[in-house]
Amino acid sequence: MKKIDEIDGVLLTPLKIIPVNKGNVFHAMKNSDPGFSGFAEAYFSLVNQGVIKGWKKHLEMTMNLVVIKGEIKFVAYDDREGSITINSFGAISLSRNNYFRLTIPPKLWVSFQGLAEENVLLNLANLTHEPDESVNLDLNAIEGIW
Amino acid sequence: MKKIDEIDGVLLTPLKIIPVNKGNVFHAMKNSDPGFSGFAEAYFSLVNQGVIKGWKKHLEMTMNLVVIKGEIKFVAYDDREGSITINSFGAISLSRNNYFRLTIPPKLWVSFQGLAEENVLLNLANLTHEPDESVNLDLNAIEGIW
Repeated sequence: MKKIDEIDGVLLTPLKIIPVNKGNVFHAMKNSDPGFSGFAEAYFSLVNQGVIKGWKKHLEMTMNLVVIKGEIKFVAYDDREGSITINSFGAISLSRNNYFRLTIPPKLWVSFQGLAEENVLLNLANLTHEPDESVNLDLNAIEGIW
Repeated sequence: MKKIDEIDGVLLTPLKIIPVNKGNVFHAMKNSDPGFSGFAEAYFSLVNQGVIKGWKKHLEMTMNLVVIKGEIKFVAYDDREGSITINSFGAISLSRNNYFRLTIPPKLWVSFQGLAEENVLLNLANLTHEPDESVNLDLNAIEGIW
């Protein structure tokens, strides 16, 4: 298992946390940031404790993912023909204590697990949700990961 | 005190919550939504319990605000010359149980209070943060609100 940003095209970008007495400010994304490829939709995905969402592969969407509450473990799987990291898996756990933006390009398989009691993920996407734009695979279709 | 969307230019837009067994999905904004005026930056602002942030007035930024955790009470004050709601105050409390996107146009004064134990606000802004683009006023400079 690689670190997730060793998978070709995946970016992990450290994000600033600005200390403020009345409540801290957590950066998420600027349109000049690495991994930004346009804004079409922002949505939150909750991940219940212990639960694993995935596998899902977006065909065109680039996801920019930020964990603002709890802790979420992400695993990516590369089966892209011609990729220099084909057949590799990469993982990372993100939280406020390991506060990075995770940029996932299209055509990678992704799954993620909620590790804390409450887990809140923000996706800043360059395409709006379309049911035909992604494909799903059973978690147990890929062995030895979860 | 008016409801906040009675202040001229302020929008309250109901947002969908998609029930999902593994963890619900909460819409925040699409680029085709009411109130969208371009994307430049997304950031989170925590508001500690009982604490009030403000007053702040953005001179150019439109804010699109979503409360994904806890409950936050917002108050807007209109001192815009020529506004049909000049000298009015408007308020709303937002949470997952009253799940709306709050669009605040530039030149309105805004303050907000964290009502729950943990309060997390997402701002989707059409400008990146610039210190000179906003002005501040002491909370007690406007009487009878907090």
